[in-house]
Amino acid sequence: MNDFTFYSPTKVFFGKDKEKEIGKIITDYNYKSVLLVYGQSSIKKTGLYDKVVNSLKDNNIKFIELSGIEPNPKLSKVKEGIALIKEEPVELVLAVGGGSVIDTAKAIACGYFLEEDPWCLNAHLVTPKKALPVGTILTISAAGSELSNSCVITNDDTKVKSGFNSDLIRPVFSVLNPELTFTVSKYQTACGIVDILMHTLERFLNDIPCQYFTDEVAIGIMRTVLECGKVAYNDPFNYDARAALMLASSYSHNGLTGLGGNFYFTVHKLEHEISGTFDEVAHAAGLSVLYSGWALSVYDKLPYKFAKFARRVLDINISDDLECAKEGIYVLREYFKSIGMPVTLSELNIKESDHLPMANRITKNDTILVPGFVKIDKEMVLCIFDKIK
Amino acid sequence: MNDFTFYSPTKVFFGKDKEKEIGKIITDYNYKSVLLVYGQSSIKKTGLYDKVVNSLKDNNIKFIELSGIEPNPKLSKVKEGIALIKEEPVELVLAVGGGSVIDTAKAIACGYFLEEDPWCLNAHLVTPKKALPVGTILTISAAGSELSNSCVITNDDTKVKSGFNSDLIRPVFSVLNPELTFTVSKYQTACGIVDILMHTLERFLNDIPCQYFTDEVAIGIMRTVLECGKVAYNDPFNYDARAALMLASSYSHNGLTGLGGNFYFTVHKLEHEISGTFDEVAHAAGLSVLYSGWALSVYDKLPYKFAKFARRVLDINISDDLECAKEGIYVLREYFKSIGMPVTLSELNIKESDHLPMANRITKNDTILVPGFVKIDKEMVLCIFDKIK
Repeated sequence: MNDFTFYSPTKVFFGKDKEKEIGKIITDYNYKSVLLVYGQSSIKKTGLYDKVVNSLKDNNIKFIELSGIEPNPKLSKVKEGIALIKEEPVELVLAVGGGSVIDTAKAIACGYFLEEDPWCLNAHLVTPKKALPVGTILTISAAGSELSNSCVITNDDTKVKSGFNSDLIRPVFSVLNPELTFTVSKYQTACGIVDILMHTLERFLNDIPCQYFTDEVAIGIMRTVLECGKVAYNDPFNYDARAALMLASSYSHNGLTGLGGNFYFTVHKLEHEISGTFDEVAHAAGLSVLYSGWALSVYDKLPYKFAKFARRVLDINISDDLECAKEGIYVLREYFKSIGMPVTLSELNIKESDHLPMANRITKNDTILVPGFVKIDKEMVLCIFDKIK
Repeated sequence: MNDFTFYSPTKVFFGKDKEKEIGKIITDYNYKSVLLVYGQSSIKKTGLYDKVVNSLKDNNIKFIELSGIEPNPKLSKVKEGIALIKEEPVELVLAVGGGSVIDTAKAIACGYFLEEDPWCLNAHLVTPKKALPVGTILTISAAGSELSNSCVITNDDTKVKSGFNSDLIRPVFSVLNPELTFTVSKYQTACGIVDILMHTLERFLNDIPCQYFTDEVAIGIMRTVLECGKVAYNDPFNYDARAALMLASSYSHNGLTGLGGNFYFTVHKLEHEISGTFDEVAHAAGLSVLYSGWALSVYDKLPYKFAKFARRVLDINISDDLECAKEGIYVLREYFKSIGMPVTLSELNIKESDHLPMANRITKNDTILVPGFVKIDKEMVLCIFDKIK
């Protein structure tokens, strides 16, 4: 087991109608001005926007707004937000939305204090030293950004999608009301299930042995995601299922499920190439496709761990590790299909002629390896793509 | 599922030799003076005292000391600590030890700002408004105080043992080095196992249905405790088992395993009477004895949950809930016996003639009920005692 430092200070306000208390929550932190960040029109349609704004007004909290954040959030919006609060400074950046909105808020909160272009954070050219506090009201269970230290942004010009991590951008608080996710579509719910699962599964499948505590917690959370995910998918207004999925979202990506392990996130790194380049591809759709291609290419190098996943999470009862591991990959792929997720590149409209240029971009023309317990070179990327074409 | 607020901001520094970095850790927080709280002579024998003191000196951190904290920590030592830092103020209270030392540090940190007697906190006569920051270096996996918001103190005069909870006393940081627990005796290791298990089990056995996420995390942590606890008990220098037990200790009692549930802690409340009155009884020994008496008295009111524990944690395969639940109680009792823990009151030298006065004290002469999904009156206390005499 590796040494580690773990810090998850986000205060969670969980339950029905909690969003109506946002003004009071912010007041208790003594913040008096807010940059309100949100996405498209949906929070206005559902009435959430009015609830939040009314609560801010009732508590005499000044706010300015940045709206129009899209999936695979763009650097241009980050810059727009920074310009806004340079003109009119605020004490808190409040994200109302899902991972894209929260990541934009984090990039603004951190980029605000930089002299350099905010892309320098995601390009790992500068280390953040300071950030404005970020708070969130979560509207979709998926990215886990509401408790995480990570922030993924796409550069509009270069199409490069890249993340940076810092404990400075862990939200100060997150408001989690499962009811706010009742209206999340079947497809977006399915995307969330894949995203949440992969946050834990990619931590679980690492080559540090004897992570008893971490493995058990990860197994529990993965079982929750698959079981309650399916319930929420079929019965969107099921409060308890939505609640379980929301908590799984938050605790799948705050670090708890990876304590003491090696952190590679190989599938995520491969996927960033797909959803960075093909903007219409949802991150989770990319993960859903790539997982089985990657897993079938590497499971024989870590059969014990893949088999443990198959046995303890999927209840597959096969005594041979390799057989069990492989069956687990197929069963998970079927699960993804059962909730309407794609499992081949062609379903994402990615053609075989796209494979080579993508492999070249991922490996910078075969000059770098994608990290992992098996490092992935260009040839292997092509093999993975071939398994899921 | 209940609404809840959850906040666990303690930064965990985990791994080998981490205690040698204590001076740097404290310096990074910008604290320059410390009250060092510790127990008996053991940290001097093991060399831990020297490591800590040298690291403080190397980083020019001033410190004063309060030593001699005993198990079931006493109010008199809390008062002594407060008097010390009233005379010579410090910026941080650093506990080096287990639950008793940490709880003493917390009571000092909070009591320091009170005009009233510090017992008012534990007697719930005042609500804490402010506390000095507390840091910990943990030397035994058991109480979970290193991440918890709770503080249990015994009043020397009245023998009353009582706890209070406040997020203000959650440690700012905790240093967790599993190697520091290699020298913990077999008996103390066993006590730790019971204590950790009971922190999660008492949260798990509550009457709020549909806590999918919380239940799965709790199941994972309880499996960890029982499996790795046995390994550590038989092989004290097994790093991975000690590591798992240490993490289980911290996350069994920080609140994570009870999210959205009802919090009763009935067995703990009954036990405080025993170890408060009979000072030679370790808290965990009291829990070990009381659990089966209590469980056998109430399991038929919550058979589904007791059966879930039996099936998922103890791998008992009985289809009938009541049968399965009952078998789980017996199996856990056997587990406790297998690690040398007492399971009857007579093993604690508590005689049948003690039962009535104890029941009277617990229920204040039959005028109050002990909270729980089954509320416990005096007659029921006597029934419980009778099952474990």
